Amino acid sequence: MSRYWSPIVNELDPYVPGEQPQDQQYIKLNTNESPYPPSPAVTDVLTRFDASTLRRYPDPESTLLVNALADHHGLAPQQVFVGNGSDEVLAHAFQALLQKSTPILFPDISYSFYPVYCALYRINFETVPLDADFRINVDAYQVANGGIVIPNPNAPTGIALPLASIRQLLESNPDSVVIIDEAYVDFGAESATSLINEFANLLVVQTFSKSRNLAGLRLGAAFANADLIEALQRIKNSFNSYPVDSLASACAIASINDDAYFQQCRERVIENRNSLAGSLTGLGFEVLPSSSNFVLASHPDRSAESLYLELKTAGILVRYFNKPRIDNWLRITVGSDTECARLIAALQQVLG
Amino acid sequence: MSRYWSPIVNELDPYVPGEQPQDQQYIKLNTNESPYPPSPAVTDVLTRFDASTLRRYPDPESTLLVNALADHHGLAPQQVFVGNGSDEVLAHAFQALLQKSTPILFPDISYSFYPVYCALYRINFETVPLDADFRINVDAYQVANGGIVIPNPNAPTGIALPLASIRQLLESNPDSVVIIDEAYVDFGAESATSLINEFANLLVVQTFSKSRNLAGLRLGAAFANADLIEALQRIKNSFNSYPVDSLASACAIASINDDAYFQQCRERVIENRNSLAGSLTGLGFEVLPSSSNFVLASHPDRSAESLYLELKTAGILVRYFNKPRIDNWLRITVGSDTECARLIAALQQVLG
Repeated sequence: MSRYWSPIVNELDPYVPGEQPQDQQYIKLNTNESPYPPSPAVTDVLTRFDASTLRRYPDPESTLLVNALADHHGLAPQQVFVGNGSDEVLAHAFQALLQKSTPILFPDISYSFYPVYCALYRINFETVPLDADFRINVDAYQVANGGIVIPNPNAPTGIALPLASIRQLLESNPDSVVIIDEAYVDFGAESATSLINEFANLLVVQTFSKSRNLAGLRLGAAFANADLIEALQRIKNSFNSYPVDSLASACAIASINDDAYFQQCRERVIENRNSLAGSLTGLGFEVLPSSSNFVLASHPDRSAESLYLELKTAGILVRYFNKPRIDNWLRITVGSDTECARLIAALQQVLG
Repeated sequence: MSRYWSPIVNELDPYVPGEQPQDQQYIKLNTNESPYPPSPAVTDVLTRFDASTLRRYPDPESTLLVNALADHHGLAPQQVFVGNGSDEVLAHAFQALLQKSTPILFPDISYSFYPVYCALYRINFETVPLDADFRINVDAYQVANGGIVIPNPNAPTGIALPLASIRQLLESNPDSVVIIDEAYVDFGAESATSLINEFANLLVVQTFSKSRNLAGLRLGAAFANADLIEALQRIKNSFNSYPVDSLASACAIASINDDAYFQQCRERVIENRNSLAGSLTGLGFEVLPSSSNFVLASHPDRSAESLYLELKTAGILVRYFNKPRIDNWLRITVGSDTECARLIAALQQVLG
């Protein structure tokens, strides 16, 4: 608090990401990063990149990256927006499309950055409770609203909505923008990008941080009709002309072009997830059905907080949320075979 | 315009950067980029970078980069903020520190992104006219205000304020935040970072895009007392936890550590600028006294617009602003020896 601050600064309750210790001493299963390196094509880009070109600004339109994403998703370039991570893309989308007089809606258990964006842009919101099984009930979104944000799969539950439910949500809310946050879609959900040409009110957000193993490079994208994309462009061009740097752009294109590696990585994560869920169940955990690169798990005999702390002592970081309804659950990122095995071994020890 | 847009989107008049043709066919003297490549240490970083680490998020605090900048400027880490280009840093600073009930002040001829930020954050502003010689008169800023933004050197004039004038500005406005935008400071002005420990109301913004030849990587920084930096952190952490990617951070640190190359580049730009200004004067141009990596020049016999168009036809891009007071001036970036020679030859031809 300071007399020099704008009033909004005092209203903020900033987002706190999962712990990011920089000493590499932990098995990190707490921030849903990939256990696999990016495509070898990314290494090639770095090795061959002509550093002298960095004296120039990037293309402010990120044309090549936008075209690559448009081709990949069967969309037109005017239906694609890119930014410095999907968090930046979401921030712009909240400001551009959700700052309305009626409160916006999102699930009570969801990505905890959404209420932070609402504070930043003074957007009123109401949360819609997940049902008793931690599922999103799209019927509950048929109330007056200024917009809707749904992560699919949801985080931290990992549970996916079928495309038919997304369609129902779009059809029953024709006057609202519906944002589908697909950060984890490649691990088992159906993307709503296939609905873009049908629905003027749909914006789909994706990231390179999870299934493309590029969290370190900060790349996100949005897909929608040109009208919604133009709103994002107008905000972006009033904020930062060049959000995506030249190197990140080149690496992202290399990743998109190596589809075989992308498929292989996501299939391995899916296999490991199913195996991890099985092992956790074997240890007595309740595990929600995940379509994501993480599982949400709860043990009947031990508090999530104590397990989190004991795992940390054992050198393994998982995510504990001290929040209503999920304060006895742990969100565990799907690691490599070795990492999953070490987690299970540590849990066996802790559980006795 | 769309029924789905937030009302703010309709109020925006987004910033338009200088032309960025992607075909490399022009001599580009229009966006104040460096004619020199980044430090060879940056190439080393790219060649040696372990791409597998990109699967991890960057350090959200950019600790190593913040520490390197703090050391370089003799400040504490809590006095340093970094972002995805100085445009992002400025955007956060406008929202964090300038959203006040009284209008903020900046020069009438200045960086044209400032009024765009004001629209984005609904900040009222008044412009203060430069004097007849295109100089900033700090006495004119002794009126009630919600904050002050001064580029030093100013753009597009290139004219610098002495540190004594910045001090006077800070002393006479103790209740306002004063932002000194030092994008071009390394080409001949005195940095106000030396005043930070004296003035609680001072925020200095710098960039890696000009004197560090890294426009393509998007890196900017702000320096101030911890209280103002905390306001920027709170905005940043409500917008994007990880704005600076791992590769950009490593390259920026390499650039800071190669001070000899930094000094050499900026000295060469200064030499070329003085030589370019002399040649332009010889062709009959009036040239403002620049402390920057560009010059603002006007010819008594030919309109700036016609010269801009004829140079473009000749394969040389310079910046023409169709704006009051400067619509008969061209902003010309200082290029390499060869680029400056080609510009002068083309102008000789055009002027007959």
